[in-house]
Amino acid sequence: MRDQYYEQLDRIVEDLVSLTTTVRRAVAESTTALLDADTTIAERVIDSGRDVDELIDEVEERAFVVLATQQPVASDLRQVVAALRMLADLQRMNALAVHVSKVARRRMPESAVPLAVQPTIRSMASVADSMIDQASRIVANRDVTAAARLELEDDTMDRLRTELFRIVLDDSWDHGLEPAIDLALLGRYYERLGDHAVNMARRVVFLVTGELPVSG
Amino acid sequence: MRDQYYEQLDRIVEDLVSLTTTVRRAVAESTTALLDADTTIAERVIDSGRDVDELIDEVEERAFVVLATQQPVASDLRQVVAALRMLADLQRMNALAVHVSKVARRRMPESAVPLAVQPTIRSMASVADSMIDQASRIVANRDVTAAARLELEDDTMDRLRTELFRIVLDDSWDHGLEPAIDLALLGRYYERLGDHAVNMARRVVFLVTGELPVSG
Repeated sequence: MRDQYYEQLDRIVEDLVSLTTTVRRAVAESTTALLDADTTIAERVIDSGRDVDELIDEVEERAFVVLATQQPVASDLRQVVAALRMLADLQRMNALAVHVSKVARRRMPESAVPLAVQPTIRSMASVADSMIDQASRIVANRDVTAAARLELEDDTMDRLRTELFRIVLDDSWDHGLEPAIDLALLGRYYERLGDHAVNMARRVVFLVTGELPVSG
Repeated sequence: MRDQYYEQLDRIVEDLVSLTTTVRRAVAESTTALLDADTTIAERVIDSGRDVDELIDEVEERAFVVLATQQPVASDLRQVVAALRMLADLQRMNALAVHVSKVARRRMPESAVPLAVQPTIRSMASVADSMIDQASRIVANRDVTAAARLELEDDTMDRLRTELFRIVLDDSWDHGLEPAIDLALLGRYYERLGDHAVNMARRVVFLVTGELPVSG
């Protein structure tokens, strides 16, 4: 009975890590769809969005069953509660990947990202990717030190978003209003992806230290 | 001991309802700050954002203590887990109110919302306000029927956001790029406020029926 209990707890962590990988892939694919104006990839991310949601719901249900049947206490309880919060983050990250792919699809056959802004969007996507990757490692290894590093990457994301606005609002911008609006929203989506990775890391801090992190 | 337990559970629901009222007020004030270009109100929402966050953290901690010390089962357990998820929604709604006030502040002494768009933004804010109010009632009364009505209001929100884009992207738009971008982000913020109200309602459905709602 206790063995089964620890198996269930471990399985939730494994599921979190594997879902984070799934969501990370969805984000990377949306970026490709966006920059290369690739309809096939955009459609794939949009279609599989609901499947990923269902996977997340399944893990959530399993976490709930553990709470209900095993009544974990102390650090085990914290772990399940943290998992529930991280699943909510993953659900939003998945939704954001779908949003990026929908912006990409709306502007087909052109790319929603004019050449002049491609480096900035590519950098934002790359920072988001790295942040999600780190979040996944932090969840897997409970590495609280790495969580602090993640906050620094979040600052880079902020700087990139400022850069994005500077390009779009510069007098030399000649791509008109609609691409500018798309880019403002895309900037917001990548920023939020980073925020959710930070949230996940903060939940691990909560797990390890028992202290509620400063909310982000 | 059991009496204290039920008091603790009831208190969490009361806290949720009262926090929802607090967040609703913050959203309404941000809208005033935005439409009237009122610096004082904008600053007040931004300053008190962190206090509201702390209030939410306190309730979260109390919910956690109930889980840890009382080990609720069945519907009581569902209630505490739902409360944790709703607190995450409230935290985001509070952050969104602060975002709206920051957009308002950035454009002072002018309003970030040109006259032509004021009716649309006012309607979006009013739908958001009504949705948050309903979410609060649904939490207080566990009224699953009202939860379904909330989804209809969410459709109104979507229509308003489409209208907003139509105005901004129309040939007659003569306010330039920066206001257009602000409006696109504001539209997104109000839409997300509505989404979170819907999420809260769905959590109540989960509470009452024990079924995980379709995620939004």
